[in-house]
This record gives sequence, structure tokens and C-alpha cells, in this order.
Amino acid sequence: MKIIVDAMGGDNAPQAPVMGAIQANKEYGVDIVLVGRGEEILKVLESNGIQELPAGVEIAHASEVVEICDNPANAFREKKDSSLTVGLNMLKSGGGDAFVSAGSTGALLSASTLLVKRIKGIRRAALAPVVPTGNGGAVLIDCGANAECPPEYLLQFAYMGSYYAEHVLGRPEPKVGLLNIGAEPSKGTSLQTTVYPMLQEAAKAGRINFVGNVEAREAVEGSVDVIVSDGYSGNIFLKTMEGTGLFLAREIKKMFMKSMLTKLAALLVSGGLKQFKKMMDSSEVGGTALLGISKPVIKAHGSSDAYAIKNAVRQAKQFASSGIIESITDNVDVMRLEVTQL
Amino acid sequence: MKIIVDAMGGDNAPQAPVMGAIQANKEYGVDIVLVGRGEEILKVLESNGIQELPAGVEIAHASEVVEICDNPANAFREKKDSSLTVGLNMLKSGGGDAFVSAGSTGALLSASTLLVKRIKGIRRAALAPVVPTGNGGAVLIDCGANAECPPEYLLQFAYMGSYYAEHVLGRPEPKVGLLNIGAEPSKGTSLQTTVYPMLQEAAKAGRINFVGNVEAREAVEGSVDVIVSDGYSGNIFLKTMEGTGLFLAREIKKMFMKSMLTKLAALLVSGGLKQFKKMMDSSEVGGTALLGISKPVIKAHGSSDAYAIKNAVRQAKQFASSGIIESITDNVDVMRLEVTQL
Repeated sequence: MKIIVDAMGGDNAPQAPVMGAIQANKEYGVDIVLVGRGEEILKVLESNGIQELPAGVEIAHASEVVEICDNPANAFREKKDSSLTVGLNMLKSGGGDAFVSAGSTGALLSASTLLVKRIKGIRRAALAPVVPTGNGGAVLIDCGANAECPPEYLLQFAYMGSYYAEHVLGRPEPKVGLLNIGAEPSKGTSLQTTVYPMLQEAAKAGRINFVGNVEAREAVEGSVDVIVSDGYSGNIFLKTMEGTGLFLAREIKKMFMKSMLTKLAALLVSGGLKQFKKMMDSSEVGGTALLGISKPVIKAHGSSDAYAIKNAVRQAKQFASSGIIESITDNVDVMRLEVTQL
Repeated sequence: MKIIVDAMGGDNAPQAPVMGAIQANKEYGVDIVLVGRGEEILKVLESNGIQELPAGVEIAHASEVVEICDNPANAFREKKDSSLTVGLNMLKSGGGDAFVSAGSTGALLSASTLLVKRIKGIRRAALAPVVPTGNGGAVLIDCGANAECPPEYLLQFAYMGSYYAEHVLGRPEPKVGLLNIGAEPSKGTSLQTTVYPMLQEAAKAGRINFVGNVEAREAVEGSVDVIVSDGYSGNIFLKTMEGTGLFLAREIKKMFMKSMLTKLAALLVSGGLKQFKKMMDSSEVGGTALLGISKPVIKAHGSSDAYAIKNAVRQAKQFASSGIIESITDNVDVMRLEVTQL
């Protein structure tokens, strides 16, 4: 198993992706290709006391870097020698089994779609993070790749999310819920009322375990394994969770910093606080899978540190060995609507 | 000032609405009309040691009760002698200045729209709760009354939300944000990209303080006073906040219950924990304003206790004395699109 890592992507590049990948190589026994400016990568290794490349780690030089100011849609074309373009071309040609990047989401999405291509029959790739919920996390699909979605996208998201929950998270017969504002099939916008019977039909045929509409509150509490949503609403869901978590964490911190006694209290629950922080921490999950692309691509959080990158590489390894792309490919015919239904 | 209270609405009726209204009468000096089954209301008073009606409190008998199983759209018509129908007819005819109910949201919305009527020119009434945010709360409009919205609804929500934040929450020049998945005007679905320039124009004319798109995370952190949204996304936002808050509160409780030492820690921060709980508690706000109706209507949470009802009555008093309905009525012409733009 060989994972290609974008050494130049993210707020903490090249330090975080390089050292995260090195740690993953050691811990998970995966081979690593670090793509980026060779001299900068070597400098990071050197400054961390690594004089020569560990076994199973190689460098693929790429002189350019995709920046925030680049147009996401064209960056990979305009910067042909960027770590993004070189890395994805390597993935496409079989030079590695998965690609991990903490760089621009938009650029990664466009480049993956146009260079590596979607699975045949899949209409759009989706961003599918695992969000922290009461049942140990749920796949949220889509969380922002496609703001506006016709029904067929959501039908495909439901299947892809279900395969991911089953194959990568190890949930047997994952419960699939349609994000909505009420339980009844009549709830929501015309998108949800159109998709509901499609998912019901897929469930009747035994293809997915669709459990009906899921309200945002129940989704957070952990009532489903897969949350199916258009990208706009999925993003609202994800960012509201993040915002609320941050807001409350700050309030709790304030509470503990008030006096000597409250600081003592913090000390007494320090083990629990650490666990709590870990549960809320996106770096534990690693990154967001791009589902629908014909090869495994993982988007790590832009602010990833080495630890988060290491976890993203672990996730890429699970993704690549899970057989999920084969499952999607083999079943894509049942995920397509008749032309008349479009 | 006379507030009409639905004595039969909500999970804890008649106890909670009756006693909450009585407390509000005492604390805020408002007159109260308790609408519902006279004998049940008297029984509640009696069992709370109140032998005769306090000054300024009267009972309006209504023999029927709108139940969960009733069709929300027709309940007020089918049960003409329900506390909902009698109370709203009283509001309409000037028998009171505002109406408070903890009963079915759907039934209250339909009945308010069809009995009390919308403000002329307002296309839809919206549910506008004050959600807890880093800046002491923001008006979220709409949070579920209208799942699917054409652009004009959102334009009107922006104005109504702004007036509410200014007149009822006391925010001068309230910052109005369009709930979206990115800052750029091109972000979101066709709804947001269409509404953005309309709000921009309203801001240029000095009518509202539109500050652009607001992402869910920043909205929670408190970057705006008014969050403008279609009812579907607004509901996802609200319920995700609630769910995340509950989820984290449970985890924190677990953390404090682990051992003797962590229980001691809980004792040391008990003051802070109480404050924290208060901040998260929807009963502090009281209820959700129905904006766009020609008279003040407040929907209290279904699970309201007497304290929450008391606060809802306080909120109804503020609403009724704020002049917001006059502001909407006076400015409704600038909130309407030309027919050709529809």
C-alpha cells in the first residue's frame, strides 16, 4: 500500500504533512510518496533530525504550489507542476493507492474530478466527513461540494455513504437517514419529498438500510450512520456543529479559569477534559473522503498538524483497502434514474 | 397591556401556562386573559393556593383543546371553541394586545395567518426565535414555517428580523447576515445568489445593515444580530445547535459523575455550571415570535414550564410595545418585488 501525500498543502505545510506522513509510515507500515518541493521536504526532515529517507518513503519533486488565491477550478491546469497536479496524476497512473492533501478543497475537488475522473455513472463527487455524534460518528454526505442538488445526486450520496459506513467505518447494515425538518415523508423541500420514495424503494430492494428522515438534532445524538444531504444544508449542519462545539468549549474554559477553586476543579477532571477534547477534535478522524472519484482521495483539514495528517493517511489506507470503489462501480446501475425521471 | 395566554397549549398545560401567566402578571404588571377550560384553570389556581383571581387576571372559557393528532391546517376551524381559536379571535378583535401559546406550532401558524391575518404585503409569516450565540443571541428567521422559499420571502425576512432585533432586542443598526456556505456573493444555491444583491441594495438605500453572507460557524460565534434563512436550512441550523448543546452537556455531565474527585470538581464549578445551563436554556428566552402577522403572537416551547411561560409573556409584552408591527407595515412597500421580478 502506497499513499501519496501532498507535502505542500495546508496551513502548516510542509512541516505537518511531511512529519505526519513519516509517522504514518512508521506506525501503519504504509509506503509514502511525498509530493512537493524536494529541497523544502528535505529541510523539514533534517530539522527533525532525520538525515536520510526512511525505508518506504520517497520524494516526488513538484516545483509549484497551489495557493489560496488561485482559482480552484483551474489551479491544477495553470500550475501543471504543482504538488496537487503531480500527485493526482501519479494516483491516476497507478503510482500510488490513495492521495491525501490538506490544500484547497475546491482545487482538490476540481482536480480529482477532471484528472482522476469520477466513477462511471456517478454524477458528482461528494465530500463525506465523519462527524462526531452520539453513536461514535456518522458519515455526512454531501457537506459542501454541491450546493444545489437534483434528486439523483442525493440517491447516489445515500449509496456511497452507506458503502463508506459499512466498508470503512465497519458498520454492518448502516442506518441511512435523509436530513430533514420532520419525520413524515411530506416534510422538507421538494428535493427531500422527491428523494424520500427513491430511498424507500432502494431499501425495499434490500440495497440500503434507509430509516427515513432524520432531524438535525437526532442526527447529532447518533440515530443514524449516514446523513444524506445536499451540499448547502450539509455544510450548514457541519459548520453549526463546529461553531456550537467551539462556543461551548470556550464557555467551559472560562468557567474553569474563574478562580483558584475552579482551576483546582479543572485539575480534578483533567482526564475527562482531555477525552472530551479528543472527541471534539477533527484531527482524530483525519480527513474527509471524496466519494465518487475513481481512486481514493482524502481531504485533510487545512489546519491539520502532523497528528491529523497521520490519521488522514491511516484513513486513506482504510479507504484504499476497503473495496468501496469496487462496490460503487459494481452497483452504479441501481443508483441511476431513468432519463425520463430526470 | 393585556396578554392573552393559551391555558391549554403545551406538554405541561394547564399547570405551566396558568402559573407562568400568574407570575408574569405579578412580576411585569401585565393584565392576563387565561383562555381555556374554566374549571381546569380554577383547579390549577386552587391547587397552588390561589383562592380568587388576582387583580388583572381574567378567564375566557373555551371548551375544546387542539391536540397533537389534529390536522394543524384545520384544527382552528374544526375546533371553533378551542383555546387557540377563541384566543386568536380575541386578539383579532382587540380583546388583548398579544397572544402566547405553547401548543402546536403548525396549528398556531395556520390559525394566526387565517384568523388574525398577515400584515398587508407580507407574503409569509416566519418563525423567528432568538438563538444563543456569542454576542448574546441572534434572531434566526425563518426556522421552519416555510421549508421552501422564493427570494422575496427572504428579503422580507431580512427586514422583519432587523426590525425585531432593533425594537425588541434593543440592538441599534442590527447586523443582518444571509446564512450561507461561504463569504463570496457567488456562494450557495440560486436562492442565496439571487437574494444577496437584493439585500445589498436594501443596505445601499440605508434600510438595513446587511453585512453579507454569514457561515453557520460565524453565526454561532455571534458575528451578526439577524440570521436570514429559508425555513429548511434555518431549522437544520437551530436543531443542530440544540442537538450539539445537548450532546455536549451530556458528555460534560458524564465527566463530572465519574468519581468522588470529579464530583468534588462539579461542586467547585457549580456556579459556573448553573450559568452555563442558563445560557443554553431556551426557557430563558421564552418563545419564538411569529413575524409577519398583524398582531403579536408568541410560540412558547412545547415543553415550557411556568418559568418559560412567564418569560414568553414578558417577550410578548416587549413585542406588543415595540412598535415593530407598525415599522413593518409602514415599510412594506420596499420589501416587495416588482411583479416582473417574481
